[in-house]
Amino acid sequence: MVSVDSPFLRACRGEPHDRVPVWFMRQAGRSLPEYRAIRGSGSITEAIRNPDLATEITLQPVHRYGTDAAILYSDIVTPLEAIGFGVEVKPGVGPVVERPFESAADLDRIVPLDPEGHTPFVLQTVRNLVAELGDVPLIGFAGAPFTVASYLIEGGPSRTYVKTKTLMYAQPELFATLLDRLADLALASLHSQVAAGASAIQLFDSWAGALSPSDYRRHVLPASQKVFAGIATTGVPRIHFGVNTGELLPLMHEAGADVVGVDWRVDLDDARARLGDDVALQGNLDPTTILAGADVAVDRARDVLRRADGHRGHVFNLGHGVMPESDPDVLKRVIDTVHAEGKVR
Amino acid sequence: MVSVDSPFLRACRGEPHDRVPVWFMRQAGRSLPEYRAIRGSGSITEAIRNPDLATEITLQPVHRYGTDAAILYSDIVTPLEAIGFGVEVKPGVGPVVERPFESAADLDRIVPLDPEGHTPFVLQTVRNLVAELGDVPLIGFAGAPFTVASYLIEGGPSRTYVKTKTLMYAQPELFATLLDRLADLALASLHSQVAAGASAIQLFDSWAGALSPSDYRRHVLPASQKVFAGIATTGVPRIHFGVNTGELLPLMHEAGADVVGVDWRVDLDDARARLGDDVALQGNLDPTTILAGADVAVDRARDVLRRADGHRGHVFNLGHGVMPESDPDVLKRVIDTVHAEGKVR
Repeated sequence: MVSVDSPFLRACRGEPHDRVPVWFMRQAGRSLPEYRAIRGSGSITEAIRNPDLATEITLQPVHRYGTDAAILYSDIVTPLEAIGFGVEVKPGVGPVVERPFESAADLDRIVPLDPEGHTPFVLQTVRNLVAELGDVPLIGFAGAPFTVASYLIEGGPSRTYVKTKTLMYAQPELFATLLDRLADLALASLHSQVAAGASAIQLFDSWAGALSPSDYRRHVLPASQKVFAGIATTGVPRIHFGVNTGELLPLMHEAGADVVGVDWRVDLDDARARLGDDVALQGNLDPTTILAGADVAVDRARDVLRRADGHRGHVFNLGHGVMPESDPDVLKRVIDTVHAEGKVR
Repeated sequence: MVSVDSPFLRACRGEPHDRVPVWFMRQAGRSLPEYRAIRGSGSITEAIRNPDLATEITLQPVHRYGTDAAILYSDIVTPLEAIGFGVEVKPGVGPVVERPFESAADLDRIVPLDPEGHTPFVLQTVRNLVAELGDVPLIGFAGAPFTVASYLIEGGPSRTYVKTKTLMYAQPELFATLLDRLADLALASLHSQVAAGASAIQLFDSWAGALSPSDYRRHVLPASQKVFAGIATTGVPRIHFGVNTGELLPLMHEAGADVVGVDWRVDLDDARARLGDDVALQGNLDPTTILAGADVAVDRARDVLRRADGHRGHVFNLGHGVMPESDPDVLKRVIDTVHAEGKVR
């Protein structure tokens, strides 16, 4: 078991601890040469389905950077792929769906997830990792119902989410049923990851920021609340994240998150003012600063620390995932700076 | 000359008027069958360079919908194209730049705009329109320095603006010089449009929402301020708009706008609370609601009116441009609803 004294878990819970914890979304993967070296020619899905490989990929950034948490190497569509919905993760593109979700008839294609039967490889990877990680906590994760639905309905990544929002507006009951099923899918996956040893979970609602607050409240909040309420019984910290969510932060907290991820568009002191002291915040260095070199990135990381103001409830992270073109040495400089200079009040 | 009693101009100035004015960003163009009928096989640039055609295209939505303002049919890269930078507007893609901006040497490619020499077709279109429009005001426009720079640097549309932001972070002085030149370009174009008869101007900083407030303040605000301060001498209302700008609205107001455009992510009552009573707001129906049919769109338009609360300083619009797939009959239903039910206090 992971020590409860882990700075990451303590920061998530707003408890006293002695250093600002850091991890990076997408810390594993394409930005690391050691990842490119071991991935080989197989697909991303094949790598996720290979526990030895997925374990090694998850560990790489922990070893290289000394992050305060590991995050499972997997994808938000892994459960859907596993139940046979027909999803493929294309490199440089993202999830692509063979036959998009169009009508009530497609609901039958979302069968309940049996984690041991459908995703034994995920659970084996989690167990491997818990054995390897020692005191470093493992974060399990799932895609939030809205974001997963957007892939199912659009058939792939989108700029405007027109099909998703049209279905949401024109057939709100069908949309609610779809999100409720996806909430069950996320919940089953998260429960199995925690049972196998994950110490925290993150629910990625990456694209919820496409919605107005009133649309989010009506069409998305209930399903996300179901996920967070369902996983609450495990007692692990629950993180919630999306981009372009400045207006949604209070609602994403209301959904049941212990930790609210903040993208780089909202200054962390503003986010704190908006959400109050009784929640942890995660973020929020602009990932493009990494591409501008160590001097710029370190300078901006210091600005994030300044705005976090030593609050116990702060987990340092980027404001979105590590970009594939990022130089690992710059990320290392950032993490070393946060560890050396970050103060916790 | 346009009557100063135009509801649109009065709303921009926060003066008393008797109906909520409406226009739609991208009200002209691909969503209209009459546009597709007259555009023919020529390029968008050719249509912009043909005053008779550009005049007709600009008038089409005014005639069909009865909008309270017309907006010039042109593009934010028209001045750059005219000075020979090498930009093409590709249908369904947007501006594409042949040789992107990479270094100080490329500054020489941004020569000063001589509106009569470089863009006589724009001025002729404006003159035609003013003669045709009668009491309906014409909005001239320009691309804001940051957004135009993003096209020049990325070479086309982008999701992440990595090249733009890397240049901004790593070479802030070069970036400032580039934006200053683009401010001059925008200003020369806007002055010529107003001199030819435009009654208001809109500065499109469509992609400024990719930046944090502190980056915007440091790297973008000075150039946008230069544009707004420069055009202030004409006395026409100045509108400023971008998407994902919830956190930037106060800064976009500070840049010198009389009217701040709000995308659909920020509820209009929240935007009003954030900006106070002494500014007009423009927006902010989610353009995807149009694709969900008249019942949904009208219902949501009523919600926008409710949140605008009859404030004198409200110009009804979408929260971003009309989508090409939009049904003009639904847009007509929206505008009729706003005119019939909107009340001005």
